[in-house]
Amino acid sequence: MTAKDRKALVVLSGGQDSTTCLYWAIEKFGLENVSAITFDYGQRHRIELECAQDIAERIGVPQVCLPIDTFAALGGDALTDTDIDITSQVDEVTSLPNTFVPGRNIVFLTFAAAWAWPRKIDVLVTGVAETDYSGYPDCRENTLASLQESLRLGMESNVEIQAPLMHLSKKETVELARDLGAIEAMAWTHTCYNGVRPPCGSCAACELRARGFAEAGIEDPLLAQS
Amino acid sequence: MTAKDRKALVVLSGGQDSTTCLYWAIEKFGLENVSAITFDYGQRHRIELECAQDIAERIGVPQVCLPIDTFAALGGDALTDTDIDITSQVDEVTSLPNTFVPGRNIVFLTFAAAWAWPRKIDVLVTGVAETDYSGYPDCRENTLASLQESLRLGMESNVEIQAPLMHLSKKETVELARDLGAIEAMAWTHTCYNGVRPPCGSCAACELRARGFAEAGIEDPLLAQS
Repeated sequence: MTAKDRKALVVLSGGQDSTTCLYWAIEKFGLENVSAITFDYGQRHRIELECAQDIAERIGVPQVCLPIDTFAALGGDALTDTDIDITSQVDEVTSLPNTFVPGRNIVFLTFAAAWAWPRKIDVLVTGVAETDYSGYPDCRENTLASLQESLRLGMESNVEIQAPLMHLSKKETVELARDLGAIEAMAWTHTCYNGVRPPCGSCAACELRARGFAEAGIEDPLLAQS
Repeated sequence: MTAKDRKALVVLSGGQDSTTCLYWAIEKFGLENVSAITFDYGQRHRIELECAQDIAERIGVPQVCLPIDTFAALGGDALTDTDIDITSQVDEVTSLPNTFVPGRNIVFLTFAAAWAWPRKIDVLVTGVAETDYSGYPDCRENTLASLQESLRLGMESNVEIQAPLMHLSKKETVELARDLGAIEAMAWTHTCYNGVRPPCGSCAACELRARGFAEAGIEDPLLAQS
């Protein structure tokens, strides 16, 4: 079976990384074999949801948005709880950033696999990267390899998790977007942790994005707009 | 560290198996170290949620109920979709019963782990069993072993998943409940897939429960009530 005979589901957040993954999946599996899944989990940067829908429509891939109300009920993390300030500081006890939602990517990929299962979709594509500054342990390759095995066993499937950005720096991710012809699409994406447009430019996510474009020597079309 | 120094979280559905596990956890870890977590995922047998709360209150363990609205959005399974008849028949394509929600236990245990994580709870206890007639692949020991590894990697924890009923027949589960002094509590539980009380007596879940009690030679106090 060649890659173009397989079907892929991209976990599309509406950000730079997952949008680059969408272009990557289309090149690898063909436009007709790619769809996207987005999760509405009560994130404070809800503009991402609109971006994800807009990006899927512009590119022409089917997209579904599934609700997850559980993270908000779990409480206590800065991405869903507006009473908590977002900082780039790590928690003294856990050594993890206060934007850490325990198990978030495990849940996303499990629901993606559950969506994929009856639709005979073979591959889940996620934009997580070990090189991400935040160091979320559920973004690491060993977690994804273990989860792939859990999902295969738990759903009796051969589902595969692919994370094309896993070992890329932000600079290399921007270069990949360039090579895939996806730079223009970066104008449709959202990155800022403060959920504002134009982006705040000062949060950790904005700074990381700016550094990636600068190091790649490419102008960020999102900033050129504003 | 002895068992009584550890904290355990029991996934409590309000059914016979998870209630037996609650007694098992209290005997092993001590009443003061046990709490319970229940998921409101839009199940059609919502009476289970009331049973779970009632059981936790009667026994005196803290209980939390978390919503999961995602399974209903995924659609197409008989446990959450009232347009689909519950039968004990298997799907011709997948060879799985039509009550199968792909990945349900993976999601439950991941959210349980996320709840446990900031609370320094070491052990997750689940009532799933390989001997369960329905043969859900995410109830098998190899799936749980793999998931435990995924959760440890993804949350940087030493969380342990314990499934004390894994290799017990329904008869042996009833005998375990007897040995733990939990038979009386079985009157507070709910099993019937049709969500009625007194139980319908004819669905696959009722039949399985009745056979377990009959084979153990113990009267089901739930039936003695009605």
